[in-house]
Amino acid sequence: MALYVQKFGGTSVGSTERIEAVADRVIATRKQGHDVVVVVSAMSGETNRLLELANAIHDKPTPREVDVLLSTGEQVTIALLSMALEKRGCKARSFTGGQVRILTDESHMRARIKEIDDKKIRSELAEGKVVVVAGFQGIDDNGNITTLGRGGSDTSAVALAAALKADECQIYTDVKGVYTTDPRVVEDARLLRTITFEEMLELASLGAKILQIRSVEFAGKYKVPLRVLSSFEDDPGTLISLEDENEMEAPIISGIAFTRDEAKVTVSGVPDVPGIAYQVIGPVSEAGIEVDVIVQNVSADGTTDITFTVKRADSEQTRDIIGRIGENVKAREVTLDKKIAKISLVGVGMRSHAGIASKMFKTLADESINIQIITTSEIKISVVIDEKYLELAVRALHSAFELGDEEKS
Amino acid sequence: MALYVQKFGGTSVGSTERIEAVADRVIATRKQGHDVVVVVSAMSGETNRLLELANAIHDKPTPREVDVLLSTGEQVTIALLSMALEKRGCKARSFTGGQVRILTDESHMRARIKEIDDKKIRSELAEGKVVVVAGFQGIDDNGNITTLGRGGSDTSAVALAAALKADECQIYTDVKGVYTTDPRVVEDARLLRTITFEEMLELASLGAKILQIRSVEFAGKYKVPLRVLSSFEDDPGTLISLEDENEMEAPIISGIAFTRDEAKVTVSGVPDVPGIAYQVIGPVSEAGIEVDVIVQNVSADGTTDITFTVKRADSEQTRDIIGRIGENVKAREVTLDKKIAKISLVGVGMRSHAGIASKMFKTLADESINIQIITTSEIKISVVIDEKYLELAVRALHSAFELGDEEKS
Repeated sequence: MALYVQKFGGTSVGSTERIEAVADRVIATRKQGHDVVVVVSAMSGETNRLLELANAIHDKPTPREVDVLLSTGEQVTIALLSMALEKRGCKARSFTGGQVRILTDESHMRARIKEIDDKKIRSELAEGKVVVVAGFQGIDDNGNITTLGRGGSDTSAVALAAALKADECQIYTDVKGVYTTDPRVVEDARLLRTITFEEMLELASLGAKILQIRSVEFAGKYKVPLRVLSSFEDDPGTLISLEDENEMEAPIISGIAFTRDEAKVTVSGVPDVPGIAYQVIGPVSEAGIEVDVIVQNVSADGTTDITFTVKRADSEQTRDIIGRIGENVKAREVTLDKKIAKISLVGVGMRSHAGIASKMFKTLADESINIQIITTSEIKISVVIDEKYLELAVRALHSAFELGDEEKS
Repeated sequence: MALYVQKFGGTSVGSTERIEAVADRVIATRKQGHDVVVVVSAMSGETNRLLELANAIHDKPTPREVDVLLSTGEQVTIALLSMALEKRGCKARSFTGGQVRILTDESHMRARIKEIDDKKIRSELAEGKVVVVAGFQGIDDNGNITTLGRGGSDTSAVALAAALKADECQIYTDVKGVYTTDPRVVEDARLLRTITFEEMLELASLGAKILQIRSVEFAGKYKVPLRVLSSFEDDPGTLISLEDENEMEAPIISGIAFTRDEAKVTVSGVPDVPGIAYQVIGPVSEAGIEVDVIVQNVSADGTTDITFTVKRADSEQTRDIIGRIGENVKAREVTLDKKIAKISLVGVGMRSHAGIASKMFKTLADESINIQIITTSEIKISVVIDEKYLELAVRALHSAFELGDEEKS
């Protein structure tokens, strides 16, 4: 008998009919003799409905009260799912984050889990009940309701699986699993049966928006086997697990991630002196803007260029900040380019295989695609290119690295 | 500086605009230098929306889960009202029933308050904050969410006022206060400026549906001055307070209550022996049906008739129950009459004034209205008549006892 934590997102519980379908799925697992803890999100649309109410009153509502408001969304779902389970003769019990005692820090709207008390859940499981827990929410030391930020239900599920030492944390979603790249861009994108935490981290952070990145980090840290699978189809999906188990047969490249929601800022002709990068990037970070890729080239004339990318939504603000400090750092010019895309090859196999980068660059060159920025890490190579070549580049790379599903291609 | 508990019902917080209006009203009280604890209901329609979701899944949803579900309604309102207050520069803090620690028994959907911890609220008030509490809900000893039943927010407000020893508990509603009778039936019905708890109890239980009866009992028991007033108009409304303060000038009759949602069951010709009333009424009460008026007349032939009234909605079930026991109690006949109405004269002045009953009976006789049942208590005389005479009877009595507003008549 295993213990599974099953997480169902907003779309999977988007109506009472879907909640009943989730109940059926949970009961199927129970009937195989397993214990189940279910983690649910708010019904799809509910969080937005609540935010609209808040925004009708206040354009910058108090974060503490936003959490009081939003946490009702998941609370509705746990009650409804428990009712659906009980209607089917399956004993069930719902818990809010506070009732479990999912203890978080005090950062409203983006709280981090500090500790989970597993006593209540274990005692309900011991009585043969399915335990239904509200995702996305917790409680701080003073009893204030906190939320983990959008997508936080994944993190709740993984944290519960870690606390309960569950055999697997299953994330039910509206896709079948993790693909080699976005199937909407590359027709023969292949469903991966296994992938390592590290690869998933790189893929998730680079735009494959299946799992919240924090939940993958959490799962890797606590060695919780994580499975992504479809709420609507019967398919084992993708298992995300520890590297060592799979490394022997790991493919060189697992997938290709890409994003087009970034913009590139170049600060040209600044003095090539120690501390210059900090002078440029520091004020941007301090404004709460996340800086992604940063590159700085050596130069001959005693000046250098620093280029970095930020979320496109933050790019105007970034330019203003750089404009203000431009004089201090003696920049010759500050340019902003919003028409960029970033493509990343990800694979643990890179560690032991040479020549991946040069093959990537050649593939792009063959398509006459100019590379603007290159950055590399141990298991990832990223390039920034003109946005208009994005689809072309992804398809060419997917094919060059033979990632396709043979049946589809 | 006084401390007021102000309660706003579902209609008063039915939209974000109305919630903002409530915020303005609360701040007006703050500006007079008073401390305010606000108790709110779910936005109108929300409780029904949630119940519909539950009923779409389960026609008899688990009471524990119904409470988890319904308590979200008030939780949304406390967050939104706190945001509206903060937007206006007024420091505010929301609390769910569990966060205050409104401790109740374990009876889901109709829990009773056992204890209120006033520490958190007092400390927030001391910091100059308006405290916004979710009405209708509490928490049991095991941390389960409970609700007090429909209209329970009034009870929450009074219980909080009692626990905090508030100077007044103000129930904001969509009427201006308590009238001598229903203004829809009697045009010159007069708004009462004061009324005693006892009178209010009799009026409330008899169909003047302004306040939940439990909240009035509670207020009387803990001597919390209770004021009913309009959310939408500036008017001091009706103060419900202790008898001794007003008795000197108490009018003989305070008001006329009536109800037409009852039905009358007569069990004829049962043996006039000890225990017969219990044999008849016992099984009805055991089925959870509330019995209102009960009368039994002495008779000559060793048999007697027992007549009682129940809610019209329960009347068919009541007849079935009596039908089943009819043979045991040797009833000659069981009859059910749904076309009845009950009218009650209420007033503490009755205690010291004779002749009220005879004046009431004469007034009805003058209109040729037949009285089917009469019951009396210390401050109330109730009669059951044919439903079709209801309006006529109420108007005649209102006029005979000179209850009208002179300006209107």
